[in-house]
Amino acid sequence: MASPDAQKQKKAKAAATSTYPLEMQPVPAFFDHRIKMFEELKAEYDASVKAKPREDITITMPDGSTKSGKSWDTSPMDIAKEISKSLSERVVIAKVDGNVWDLERPLEASCKLELLDFEHPEGKRVFWHSSAHVLGEASEKHYGCHLCLGPPTDDGFFYEMGIEDRAVTVADYPALEKVSESAIKEKQKFERLIVSKEKLLEMFGYNKFKKYLIETKVPDGTSTTVYRCGPMIDLCVGPHIPHTGKIKAFMITKSSASYFLGDSNNESLQRIYGISFPDKKQLSEYKIFLAEAAKRDHRKIGKEQDLFFFNDLSPGNCFFLPHGTRIYNALIELLRSEYFKRGYQEVISPNMYSSKLWETSGHWQNYKDDMFVLDVEKEKWALKPMNCPGHCLIFDSRDRSYKELPIRMAEFGILHRNEASGALTGLTRVRRFVQDDTHVFCMPSQLEDEISALFDFMQHVYGMFGFEFYLELSTRPDNYLGKIETWDVAENQLKKALDKHYPGQWELNPGDGAFYGPKIDITVRDALRRSFQCATIQLDFQLPERFNLKYRSAEDFGNPDKPPSRPVMIHRAILGSMERFIAIATEHFAGKWPFWLSPRQIVVIPVAAPYKDYAGQIVDRLSALGLYAEVDNSDNTLPKKIRNGEISQYNFILVVGQEELDAQSVNVRNRDDIGTKSKGQMVPLDEIVAKFVELKASRRLENQFI
Amino acid sequence: MASPDAQKQKKAKAAATSTYPLEMQPVPAFFDHRIKMFEELKAEYDASVKAKPREDITITMPDGSTKSGKSWDTSPMDIAKEISKSLSERVVIAKVDGNVWDLERPLEASCKLELLDFEHPEGKRVFWHSSAHVLGEASEKHYGCHLCLGPPTDDGFFYEMGIEDRAVTVADYPALEKVSESAIKEKQKFERLIVSKEKLLEMFGYNKFKKYLIETKVPDGTSTTVYRCGPMIDLCVGPHIPHTGKIKAFMITKSSASYFLGDSNNESLQRIYGISFPDKKQLSEYKIFLAEAAKRDHRKIGKEQDLFFFNDLSPGNCFFLPHGTRIYNALIELLRSEYFKRGYQEVISPNMYSSKLWETSGHWQNYKDDMFVLDVEKEKWALKPMNCPGHCLIFDSRDRSYKELPIRMAEFGILHRNEASGALTGLTRVRRFVQDDTHVFCMPSQLEDEISALFDFMQHVYGMFGFEFYLELSTRPDNYLGKIETWDVAENQLKKALDKHYPGQWELNPGDGAFYGPKIDITVRDALRRSFQCATIQLDFQLPERFNLKYRSAEDFGNPDKPPSRPVMIHRAILGSMERFIAIATEHFAGKWPFWLSPRQIVVIPVAAPYKDYAGQIVDRLSALGLYAEVDNSDNTLPKKIRNGEISQYNFILVVGQEELDAQSVNVRNRDDIGTKSKGQMVPLDEIVAKFVELKASRRLENQFI
Repeated sequence: MASPDAQKQKKAKAAATSTYPLEMQPVPAFFDHRIKMFEELKAEYDASVKAKPREDITITMPDGSTKSGKSWDTSPMDIAKEISKSLSERVVIAKVDGNVWDLERPLEASCKLELLDFEHPEGKRVFWHSSAHVLGEASEKHYGCHLCLGPPTDDGFFYEMGIEDRAVTVADYPALEKVSESAIKEKQKFERLIVSKEKLLEMFGYNKFKKYLIETKVPDGTSTTVYRCGPMIDLCVGPHIPHTGKIKAFMITKSSASYFLGDSNNESLQRIYGISFPDKKQLSEYKIFLAEAAKRDHRKIGKEQDLFFFNDLSPGNCFFLPHGTRIYNALIELLRSEYFKRGYQEVISPNMYSSKLWETSGHWQNYKDDMFVLDVEKEKWALKPMNCPGHCLIFDSRDRSYKELPIRMAEFGILHRNEASGALTGLTRVRRFVQDDTHVFCMPSQLEDEISALFDFMQHVYGMFGFEFYLELSTRPDNYLGKIETWDVAENQLKKALDKHYPGQWELNPGDGAFYGPKIDITVRDALRRSFQCATIQLDFQLPERFNLKYRSAEDFGNPDKPPSRPVMIHRAILGSMERFIAIATEHFAGKWPFWLSPRQIVVIPVAAPYKDYAGQIVDRLSALGLYAEVDNSDNTLPKKIRNGEISQYNFILVVGQEELDAQSVNVRNRDDIGTKSKGQMVPLDEIVAKFVELKASRRLENQFI
Repeated sequence: MASPDAQKQKKAKAAATSTYPLEMQPVPAFFDHRIKMFEELKAEYDASVKAKPREDITITMPDGSTKSGKSWDTSPMDIAKEISKSLSERVVIAKVDGNVWDLERPLEASCKLELLDFEHPEGKRVFWHSSAHVLGEASEKHYGCHLCLGPPTDDGFFYEMGIEDRAVTVADYPALEKVSESAIKEKQKFERLIVSKEKLLEMFGYNKFKKYLIETKVPDGTSTTVYRCGPMIDLCVGPHIPHTGKIKAFMITKSSASYFLGDSNNESLQRIYGISFPDKKQLSEYKIFLAEAAKRDHRKIGKEQDLFFFNDLSPGNCFFLPHGTRIYNALIELLRSEYFKRGYQEVISPNMYSSKLWETSGHWQNYKDDMFVLDVEKEKWALKPMNCPGHCLIFDSRDRSYKELPIRMAEFGILHRNEASGALTGLTRVRRFVQDDTHVFCMPSQLEDEISALFDFMQHVYGMFGFEFYLELSTRPDNYLGKIETWDVAENQLKKALDKHYPGQWELNPGDGAFYGPKIDITVRDALRRSFQCATIQLDFQLPERFNLKYRSAEDFGNPDKPPSRPVMIHRAILGSMERFIAIATEHFAGKWPFWLSPRQIVVIPVAAPYKDYAGQIVDRLSALGLYAEVDNSDNTLPKKIRNGEISQYNFILVVGQEELDAQSVNVRNRDDIGTKSKGQMVPLDEIVAKFVELKASRRLENQFI
C-alpha cells in the first residue's frame, strides 16, 4: 500500500486532472462496520415485527372508499397495487393519518391513507430527499468523505460533506453521476430501522458531524430512524421512495463551499447540489428551463443592459447605474401615484435608532444579530432593518382620534440587514434594500375594508406585470398573544375579504399565523412558472401594545374609565424589496421591459446625415414629454443600427429619411420585429407621439402601439 | 466674612431668584493683580514709543489722495479727524497696508490707509469683538468667573467662561446688561500692549483657561498682545474700537452650556451671547428682525403645519410627516425634472463601505471622527458622509471613452455625519441628510461649458424661490496639489464662465481654493436678508488621481505610451442638504409655500350640507390631477372654515353653494385675502382647474391665479 504522502500526492493529482479514477478509490472502512451493525439490528427488528399480532384493519381513501388489510402486514404499496398497476408505479410516498409514511412500511392500525406522486409537493420532497441519499452514497464511495446533512430543496437536493484536502469541482460531476447511476441501476431498497441513541453513536462514531448531530439532536434514552440503501446507511427521519430504481434521471447541478451548521466558526464543508426526476423527459424539460433561466439571469441581463453592478468594497449593497435607476424610479413612481389615489400618506423616518427603540419593538432581543450595530456617544444604536418601529413613533407623535383612522403610512426607507457575505446573491439576497412598506393603523372594525382595498391594490399592480398569484390565510397559532376575541374578529374579516375577492380560490392554514397576528401569504408565479413571495399582509396586535399606541374612540366620551383604544397595525408590502423585485421582474420579462418600465424606450435612426436634424427634433420632442429617447448617430449601416436597437431592447425603433421628413412621419419598428424582416410602418409623427404618451401613462404590458 | 458654605448658599439663593444683587459681589482679587502688571509694562512700553524717532510719513487713502504725518505719532484717528468730524465719529477701525489696526495706534511708517465703519463686515467684527470685552468685564464683575474665549460671530458676539456651581439663566441678563452699560458709560479706552509669553503666564496665571491658551498657542520666546478696557485686561490679538462709549446699544440675546475648546471631554463652560450697535435705532430694528425670525423659525412652523418632528430615540435624524414629505418630494421632483432636461444621470449607490474605500478617498485619514463606523465581518466599515467616492467607483465600473464625457452623475443618497448631539439644531444641523449631489466627470476643455450650464441651472432653481445670490471664486492656494497648468486652465475657464454670466458681479479670493482644486462659493440671501451658503461648485483634480480614474482620449490612438487621460471632477450641489434647505425655505416663505411646493394647495368649503357632493366632486377632479385638495366637511361656520383654511396656509379656498353649483363654478379666495374682507370671486370650475394645473407646472412664485 502506498505511504500516506504518496496517497496524498495521488489524490492531489487526481483533483488536478479532469477525471478521478473510480477503481483506485478503496471502499471506506466504515461501510462494513455500518452494514454489520445495521444487519444485526434489522434482524432483531424484523423478528419483533413478525411477533406482532395480525388484525383486520380498514383503510379509508381520500374519496371515502375503504380497503381492508392486516395490521403489521398490509403496506400502502399493497393498496396502491390493488388499485392499479400504473398507480403503484407512479406513487412516491404515502400519507397515513396525515403523516408521511414509506410505501413498503406496514400499516399498524385502521387509518386514512393518501398516495402521493411526484407532482405533489410532498412527493417531490421525498423523491429528492431519496436522491440525496444516492448522491451521499456516491460521494462516500468517490471521496471516502464523511457526510453531514442531505436535505431536499425547492428545486432538487444537496448533500454536504467534509472532504479532506480537496474542493469539489465541475470535473468531478461525471464520475459522481456515474457512481450514482450504478446505485440507481441496482434498485437499492430503502430500508427503515429504529435505533437507540447509544447504538447510533456506535454506528456513526467514525463521523464527527453525525456524532455531533446525534449528541445534540437525539435526546438521551430515545431512538430515531436510520435508512439504508445499498451500502449507504444514514441517520434520517425519512420517509423514502421504495427503491433507488424509481429515479429515472439524475444530474448534479452545482457545488459550493459551506460551513457545518451554517456557522462560519465551524469546519468548512463541500456542498453538492443535484436534481432528479421519475421520468427522463422531465430532465430534458428541466435542462431547457435551466438554459432559459440562465439566459434570463438578472445578473447577466443587469450587466448586458448596464443596469447595476456590485463591488467588493460594499458586498450586498447594489450600485444602480443610470438605466437601472430609471427602472427603480419608475417602480417607485407607480407606487406613489397609486398611494396618492388610494389615500396613503408617505413619510420619511430615520435610518438609525438607539437600542432603546429596538428594545421596545423587541428587535434587540430577537433580531440583534441581523442588524448593523453602531456606537453613538456611548450608547448602542442600530441601522433599521424595517420601518415599523419608526412608524409607531410617528403614529405616537401626537394624539390621535378615531376620525383620523385608518392611517396608511408608506415609506421608501432604506433598510439594512447584516447578512453573512457568503449568503449574498445578486439582487435576491442583499444587505441594503428598500421595501414598498406600508403600515395601516386602523380600528378592528375597519379590517375588512382595508384588506379588500389591499387586494384591489395588489391585483392592480400585479396585473401590470402579468403575474398570477395565490393566497393563503394563516390563523391563530397555539402560542398566540392577545385576546381571543380580537383574533376572531380579525380572522373573520380577513375571511370575508378573501371570500369576496377570491371565492374558492384561497387556502386556509389553520394555526400557522404569527404569535402577534394572522397573516395572508401571497405567492406570485413568473413567466417560467417559478414561485416567489413578494406581497405580505400581516396583522399585528402586539406592536401597538409595545409602543402603547392609542386613539380616542367615539366610545371614550362619557366613559372616563375606559381603557385606551388600540389600533390594529397591518404590515403590508406589494413588491416586497425593490431590489429583489427588480431581479424577479428582470427574469420574468427576460430584460424585455414593458414600455412604461423601460429604461430605453425609443431610438431614432436617421438613414443618412441630412436627416440627423429631423431625428434630433423628434428626440427633443419625446424627451420633453419625459420619454427615454435617443438618436443613433453612429457610423454604422442602417441594418446594423436597427439590429443594435433591437438587441439593446429599445421598445421602438423609428427610422427617418426623406419620405418621413416630407410627411412629418416616422417608420416604426417594434423590437419584437427582430428577425421578421419587417419593413416597419409609416406613422405620422403626431400620432406616434400621442401613442407613446398613452402607452406610458396606461402602463400597459403590450409593446404594440396600433 | 461669611464662611464658604454660607457664601455658596447665598450664591445659590441669588441664582434661584430673578435678580443677582450686584453690590454683594466682591471685585475679584485678580483685577488688582492684572492692572498692576499692565500699568508697569505699559509705562515701559510708552517710554519705548516715546524714544522712537519721529519722521515724516505719507499716508495714501483708497481714492489715491495722500495725507502727511509723523511716524510713531500720527494715528488713523488723527487722519479721520482731519478729513471730517462725522467720519471720525463713525469710523470703527482702520486698515493699514491691508491689516486691521486700532484707530488710536500710531502709524509706524508711510502706508496705505482705509477707514472702516460698522457697515463694513470687518468693522462689524471689530465692533462686536470689542463688545465681547465689555460683556467679559461685566461677567467677571458679576460672577467672579474665569473668562475663556470671546469672539465676534455672524450676528453679534459671545463670551465663554467657567463659573463655579451655577449656570447662567435668563434672570441674570438684566444685571449683566446693567454692569455692561455702566462700563460703556465710562467710555473705557481700549489700550493695546505687547507682552512676552513669560509675563503673560504671570498676568493670567490665576485663570487655567487663559493659561492653557498661552501655553499652547503662544510659542516660547515670543510675545503677543493684551488689551485693557477699564479693569478688564484680556489676552487678545485685537484690534478694537477706540473706547467702549462707541457702543450705543447693547443686549444679551441668549446663553448656553459649552465645552472648553468644543471638546466634550473638557470642562463644561457657560456661553453668553450678545449683540450691539453704534446706534440705538439699529437695535430696535434688530429686535423687530428677531421677532420676525422667531415667527418664521422652521421648528415652530414645522410643528404648526405638521411638517416634521424629532424624537430622542434618534437625535439629529428628522421624521418628516406626510405634509413635510410632500415638500421634500416636490423639491426632489423639481431637481429630477431638471436633471432629465439637462442631461444628468441619476444613480443609486450603497450607504456603507469598507474602510478600504475611505482610505483610498482619504476620508479615513481626515474625516473618520465625523463618520459612523461599523464592524462588518471583522472589518471596519463606515456609513457614507458624502456620495463622491461611490460615484468614482461607478465611473470606474467600466472603460470610459472621451465620447461619453461629460458624465453628470446625480444621486439623492442618504448621508450620515456623526455630529455631537449637543451641536444638533432643528433641520439646520442634523446627522442624516440628503444632498442634491452631482459629480460631473469631464475633460479639462469642457469646464467652461459645464460651469456655464451649472450657473444656468442654479439661477433657474434659485429664481423659483426668489433668492438673490452672490459669487466668489477662490483660486490656487500655496499648498496646492497637481500640475500648475491644470490649475491655470481650470481657473481661466471658471473666470470666463463667471464673466459671461455675471460680468463685474463676482469677487475673487486669490489663494483661497482647496488644495485639490479651485471653487466657486455661492451665497444666497433670504427674505430677511440673511445669508446662507447652499450651492457649491468645487473642482477636484485629486479624487480622480486617488481612484485612478481614466478615459480613452482622442489622442490615445497611435500613442500607446501616452499616460491615461484623467477626468476633472466637479462636486456640485444647488440646494445643498435637502433638510437644511427645507429649513431655509420654511423661514424664507414664513410657511406660506408657493403653490407648486405647497403641501396644502386647495380647500373646498361647501356652504351647507347639500353642497358636500359638489365639493367632493371638485376635490376628486383636482386630486386626479395630482393636486393636494381637501374638503372641509367640519361642523364649523362658514367664516370659521374660511379662516381655518387661511391659517392652515391653503393657497386657495374654494367656497361652493347653490349659485356655484348651478354655474358649475367656484368662489375663489386667495390665502393672502386674510383679513381683507374679500368676498372672493366666481370662476368657472374648468377655468380654475386649468389655472391650478398651470400654476403647479410653471412652478411660479405668485399665489395669484388671474
